[in-house]
Amino acid sequence: MALIVQKYGGTSVANVDRIKNVAARVKSFWQQGNKMVVVVSARSGVTNELVARAKALHAMPNEREMDMLLSVGEQETIALLSIALHAIGVPACSRTGAQAGVYTDSLHTRARISRITGGDINERLEEGKVVIVAGFQGISPKDEVTTLGRGGSDLTAIAIAAAVSADLCQIYTDVEGVFTADPRVVLDARKLQEIDYDEMLELASSGSKVMQARSVEFAKKYAVPFEVRSSLNDKPGTLVKDIASKTMEDAVVSGVAVDRTQTRVTVSDIPDNARAIACIFNALGDAGLNVDMIIKNLGTQGRANLTFSVNTDQFAFAERVIGAVVKELGSGAVRAAGEVAKLSVVGVGMVSHPGVAGTLFNALASVGVNCDLITTSEIKIAVAIDPLKADEAARAVHEAFELNKLKPLG
Amino acid sequence: MALIVQKYGGTSVANVDRIKNVAARVKSFWQQGNKMVVVVSARSGVTNELVARAKALHAMPNEREMDMLLSVGEQETIALLSIALHAIGVPACSRTGAQAGVYTDSLHTRARISRITGGDINERLEEGKVVIVAGFQGISPKDEVTTLGRGGSDLTAIAIAAAVSADLCQIYTDVEGVFTADPRVVLDARKLQEIDYDEMLELASSGSKVMQARSVEFAKKYAVPFEVRSSLNDKPGTLVKDIASKTMEDAVVSGVAVDRTQTRVTVSDIPDNARAIACIFNALGDAGLNVDMIIKNLGTQGRANLTFSVNTDQFAFAERVIGAVVKELGSGAVRAAGEVAKLSVVGVGMVSHPGVAGTLFNALASVGVNCDLITTSEIKIAVAIDPLKADEAARAVHEAFELNKLKPLG
Repeated sequence: MALIVQKYGGTSVANVDRIKNVAARVKSFWQQGNKMVVVVSARSGVTNELVARAKALHAMPNEREMDMLLSVGEQETIALLSIALHAIGVPACSRTGAQAGVYTDSLHTRARISRITGGDINERLEEGKVVIVAGFQGISPKDEVTTLGRGGSDLTAIAIAAAVSADLCQIYTDVEGVFTADPRVVLDARKLQEIDYDEMLELASSGSKVMQARSVEFAKKYAVPFEVRSSLNDKPGTLVKDIASKTMEDAVVSGVAVDRTQTRVTVSDIPDNARAIACIFNALGDAGLNVDMIIKNLGTQGRANLTFSVNTDQFAFAERVIGAVVKELGSGAVRAAGEVAKLSVVGVGMVSHPGVAGTLFNALASVGVNCDLITTSEIKIAVAIDPLKADEAARAVHEAFELNKLKPLG
Repeated sequence: MALIVQKYGGTSVANVDRIKNVAARVKSFWQQGNKMVVVVSARSGVTNELVARAKALHAMPNEREMDMLLSVGEQETIALLSIALHAIGVPACSRTGAQAGVYTDSLHTRARISRITGGDINERLEEGKVVIVAGFQGISPKDEVTTLGRGGSDLTAIAIAAAVSADLCQIYTDVEGVFTADPRVVLDARKLQEIDYDEMLELASSGSKVMQARSVEFAKKYAVPFEVRSSLNDKPGTLVKDIASKTMEDAVVSGVAVDRTQTRVTVSDIPDNARAIACIFNALGDAGLNVDMIIKNLGTQGRANLTFSVNTDQFAFAERVIGAVVKELGSGAVRAAGEVAKLSVVGVGMVSHPGVAGTLFNALASVGVNCDLITTSEIKIAVAIDPLKADEAARAVHEAFELNKLKPLG
């Protein structure tokens, strides 16, 4: 007897048969006496079709109209899932983002949640109803439909879970949980039973595609425990929560993640002072570009060179942004210095275990992988390596930290 | 320089290319300095697809959820048309039914408009924007999405035109206007330049498929003149308005309509008193069933027989409703007495021209068509005839009233 928020993504509700499967799963939880709120995405493919029609009309469609357009995808799904539940005898009602009280700012196509009331969800739950909520969408101060951008439905689920004080939030997806490494690359990768918010955050920003960092941040901020699990079977997934009690001896490193989509950028011959460097990173930040693994080298004649990594598909944009800055600074040149893979080892115990870096570099050396850019945080060490050697490196590092042998955390 | 409300149906916005055509037409009116409000339906086919998915999940889907589901069709179109207008340099913004202040009752899937404010349409028009409004949908007192049922987008257009005091409301459709008869049957049928609301109402309820009677009633009540015209060319259509000045000599009969979808119903052996007859028609009315062309005959032993026509696809329902009543009355039997076609001649001048009925029956006799059920109103005479002879009868009547030769009305 708990209050559970479940979230199903687009592939889980892609067609009538899959919607029936979701309805059956929701019913099984509801029959056990749980109060159920279900957040759904648009049927997979729908959003792409809508975007294609808009792009056929205009190369850069207006963002407010895109939100009006894209929000129909989830609205279709909530009605269909509600109807599917009625068909199997479960009382259910659907709620749009606006009806569920998902208030956002006015930044169309990438709105941020400012407040969430849950609308009348609690009253409907008291009546024994399952409440189906449209993910990905909210309403602006001007009563305009907004969408939350990438990972928006996960965020809706976690925010609703916070608003209704859910006991658990389950994120159903096409993977079985969070693994110690990508199971397609590292064959003995192991599913984690639990993981700390911070570890999950580092994994999310280190190339693990399970969830967007934004939703994990929200869950951490509002202390919403959530479980990442598969909609294809009934196996328990990975519980993401605040693992205050984690004993350092048990688990130093939780996982290895590889992000293959990074490009190394070199900005050479800029003035060697803090203001110049600040100008560059301020401009990148204002443009919404994340950079990572920054190194500064001294060049000749009091000049400096900066090297860092950006997402490969953002390089052209980053180049334009930096180009404008170096023009203003009076000197400097920007160029791509090749694609790199970013390999990260993540674990909350790391900071107190001085041997982690040594183990990492030994493992890389054992398979002849070199690295130049290195970045560390309290719970992560990341290195930039040759993308062609990334799989081999991941396997070696996974083995060196004995991730296949670790007992369940927590 | 006028305020024009235009309405485009599903076939006019079926795909990206047709949406571009609509945008071009709207632009041409806007460029002439007109203030433009455009009401659109769902792309043709979309509603059927959504209904099919719902029916695949539940034989009788919940009506509130059907409204949640079906209203996405128009929401897609308003965004796409808005984007298409932006692409050709026309400032435009979309509004859902709720945003346009279309307030309805809570009768889901067949809501009735209770109040219409237009929302912020006037402010946006003042800014020079074209406002695109989702047809067919409104919002209930409980802030739930409702839909208006058949012909709902026409009704939205006329109601919005009333709310913003539009100079003209144009209903774009796949016919060129209102004709003196069905041009596919009567080859020299003529497009009417103007027609009175009442005539249009009689035509709408007499089998002419141009518009639902409901929208015409609304237009008449709020004195909204509207033009029915084709979205495939630039020809003027038919203006529907209050023709107070119509001279009786000019036009006795405006048109001939044939409704082939009627079934004759006989209720025999019921008590011959007003209460019994009232019971039957009250029950039919409560069930939302329209009956027409009623005849009462005396039977044997103080019993009466009723004959009337109903829409063929409503016969099974009518039979159940009447069956329940005759059981209560203690006697009576109901049966279908064959399909009939209803041929109507319509014209506001008719009541003061006693020769109309004679001309009609002469025409029918000239082609050997018999009729039994006859019904008259101030502006209509309708007869039930053999469906197989309906085309021939329509041609004979059209010729007898010289409808092909009439000068433009008004």
